[in-house]
Amino acid sequence: MSSSDIDTLIEMMAKLPGLGPRSARRAVLHLIRKRALLLTPLADAMQAVAATARECLNCGNVGTSDICDICHDDKRATGELCVVEDVSDLWAMERANVFKGRYHVLGGTLSALEGVGPEELSIPKLVDRVVSEEISEVILALNATVDGQTTAHYIADQLETRVKLTSLAQGVPIGGELDYLDEGTISAALNARKTI
Amino acid sequence: MSSSDIDTLIEMMAKLPGLGPRSARRAVLHLIRKRALLLTPLADAMQAVAATARECLNCGNVGTSDICDICHDDKRATGELCVVEDVSDLWAMERANVFKGRYHVLGGTLSALEGVGPEELSIPKLVDRVVSEEISEVILALNATVDGQTTAHYIADQLETRVKLTSLAQGVPIGGELDYLDEGTISAALNARKTI
Repeated sequence: MSSSDIDTLIEMMAKLPGLGPRSARRAVLHLIRKRALLLTPLADAMQAVAATARECLNCGNVGTSDICDICHDDKRATGELCVVEDVSDLWAMERANVFKGRYHVLGGTLSALEGVGPEELSIPKLVDRVVSEEISEVILALNATVDGQTTAHYIADQLETRVKLTSLAQGVPIGGELDYLDEGTISAALNARKTI
Repeated sequence: MSSSDIDTLIEMMAKLPGLGPRSARRAVLHLIRKRALLLTPLADAMQAVAATARECLNCGNVGTSDICDICHDDKRATGELCVVEDVSDLWAMERANVFKGRYHVLGGTLSALEGVGPEELSIPKLVDRVVSEEISEVILALNATVDGQTTAHYIADQLETRVKLTSLAQGVPIGGELDYLDEGTISAALNARKTI
């Protein structure tokens, strides 16, 4: 029988994405067993992030200042702007460590059903940035889902007269086996085939 | 690109059981988005647990005082003592809400390979408690694994002259389908069949 403080912590942990009641109990028990080594430092780290984390006013990335490290970094003013749905997509792009420009985080996809219009997605802000930051190329790195592609089309409509627009290539993932790929991906890879 | 505080938090979260780097990133991003509502309260709850959580000196349960609520509760001095491997097993028994006695948490199973002997498992303490708390029945609720059953046999050897020993029944789980059960379980359920 756990006491109320512990129960409260388990309930809170169980609400995190990727954790349920069972894994929250396991995690909390693990933390309690190593409380000096894990629980106190984790609580401190959370306090630190809670005190400093904020969204970048320019691009929507998450960082510890009003303007994020990427927007601050003059070396990244390459004139290329990569549009992503979410901060997690931005982080995924950064892990690939290949894009040297700046980002614009939409914060989701257009959805008539859920009442998400261009205003909610900082699309007007994107149009502003294309002009004010002298952007030469906008790379639409939206997810290859129906919603993602619908949003990409809308943005393309807004920007096509102002700037060069590109999107990520579609095809066979590195290490991918044809047998495990869906028909849509194979079809896209065949249509975009390259001479060797 | 996340800043260092956020990276530290992600790394710490990724070490929790049940979370990996990807789910830790998702969880931290979720917490940052709702930092007033989730992150600060979660950090506070962790601080509270870090400050107060401890193992019960008597049974090994985790609680917020030196003697846990169950050991404190006189109504639970039924003379029945349920031996479990781990605090999570104790919590599972408590969720079933059917056992009215007290517990003894071993903290693992005997393992020659990993150098876990009776001393490491608080088995001597168990023998002491059987005498000092006037226990009439010891229920061995160890996991139905090879290690669990080996440990149960060892404890039975230590206690068989002193107290009545029982173990949890083995058989078909409630809601279980025969087609999905292993041969060992079906065999155990058949051997322990009951007249209706």
